[in-house]
Amino acid sequence: MKYKAFHKLSYGLYIISTRFNGQNAGYIGNTVFQVTSEPAQIAVSCHKKNASVEKILQSKIFSVSVLGKSASTSLIGEFGFMSSTDLDKFRNVETITAKTGAPIVLDSSVAWFDCKVVSTQDVGSHILIIGEVLDSNIISDEEPLTYAYYREKYKMLSPKHSPTYINKETLEKEDTENKKPEPAKPKEEETVQKEGGNMDPFVCTVCGFQYDPEEGDPSAGIPPGTPFEDLPDDYRCPICNAGKEYFKRNS
Amino acid sequence: MKYKAFHKLSYGLYIISTRFNGQNAGYIGNTVFQVTSEPAQIAVSCHKKNASVEKILQSKIFSVSVLGKSASTSLIGEFGFMSSTDLDKFRNVETITAKTGAPIVLDSSVAWFDCKVVSTQDVGSHILIIGEVLDSNIISDEEPLTYAYYREKYKMLSPKHSPTYINKETLEKEDTENKKPEPAKPKEEETVQKEGGNMDPFVCTVCGFQYDPEEGDPSAGIPPGTPFEDLPDDYRCPICNAGKEYFKRNS
Repeated sequence: MKYKAFHKLSYGLYIISTRFNGQNAGYIGNTVFQVTSEPAQIAVSCHKKNASVEKILQSKIFSVSVLGKSASTSLIGEFGFMSSTDLDKFRNVETITAKTGAPIVLDSSVAWFDCKVVSTQDVGSHILIIGEVLDSNIISDEEPLTYAYYREKYKMLSPKHSPTYINKETLEKEDTENKKPEPAKPKEEETVQKEGGNMDPFVCTVCGFQYDPEEGDPSAGIPPGTPFEDLPDDYRCPICNAGKEYFKRNS
Repeated sequence: MKYKAFHKLSYGLYIISTRFNGQNAGYIGNTVFQVTSEPAQIAVSCHKKNASVEKILQSKIFSVSVLGKSASTSLIGEFGFMSSTDLDKFRNVETITAKTGAPIVLDSSVAWFDCKVVSTQDVGSHILIIGEVLDSNIISDEEPLTYAYYREKYKMLSPKHSPTYINKETLEKEDTENKKPEPAKPKEEETVQKEGGNMDPFVCTVCGFQYDPEEGDPSAGIPPGTPFEDLPDDYRCPICNAGKEYFKRNS
């Protein structure tokens, strides 16, 4: 079994939202797909422990916003790595109310669907929610964000409750098995390349985002070549907003 | 309802294969996604009238080959638009036999999964087949083919039994509603642009592939600027292999 083969399946990234008992809830999902064309129905695979999913099952309504390629990382971080139980994720985003009553996130979105739940299928840790699409629209011509692009750009892992989660140890083991040993570089040369700074990558322990000093963090105005130690004290993970203290060396 | 919004959902393209009663069967699908990570399970949405699907439901095994970006159009055409009842689609492709006994198509593939059916969910015209992944591997580092790339490159419609099928009239109606009327061009200028030949595009009535004389058909050695009428008599649709007589003017 090669777990990295699962990375070859293509997905987009979506905000799935609902409204129950006067409260909005939503999360980021990648496993959204159309299952029939007449009537138009889409399926979403959701972890049973996801707080928003519980609300979708009770309200029986949900919307899907399709994120565009330039989607804001803080939006993805907040909707993807925070819980709707802890904060109102909708406080800073532009929304409209769908026919079903579900909120539709417009920020960073290129299209949306408004759905009522018609059936569910228990698949173990997750539940497949099938929704009939009652309304849909296109907001922008921007290319949709694909999960492959997002993963590559931010060197991200899936959150633990994602259907596509693979634990880091498994991935690293497969990587190690495939890598041929590289000839050792002379110590001196390495020091020159690193220009004196410590160029070790650091990984966010909350969401898995990797800070690579060679690339810096353009979203926060951090130029390439900035060692993690030289980041300002108030630097925060561009994905999940965790502070510097949540990062650990990934050498 | 905006039907084109469904084109914003991201998919890959896959060959889904099985073996039942000593015979191989397979088809092209785009709606394949992972539904749980432990155990690893994937879901596929299949039209009930698909001949291969019937065999998957009886054999309770299937494989998924993930197509790469440079996948052969004739492979896609044959697996996507022909029926396993009419021909042995596997006669010219390299395969291996999975642990379950299902054939795995290696041609044009970047990865594969070997699955046993663990549950199904009736969703109307289609059936959701949930398979537990027993084995998987990566064949190549090539980028997976996305459905968006394929649709854009070949100006294709989904086959009629696809979960993502939208009929042409609906799409054209949405296009017409969005288009502003263009000022009429003087007839003379138009003739000059066409360099004397008839540069009308022709569409394959079997699969929806559009032959555009301005682009020609590099896969068949037809240079750009070749009017449809000048194509050799034995020209065949690069997607579904239909003869010239199946094409109609699309002006």
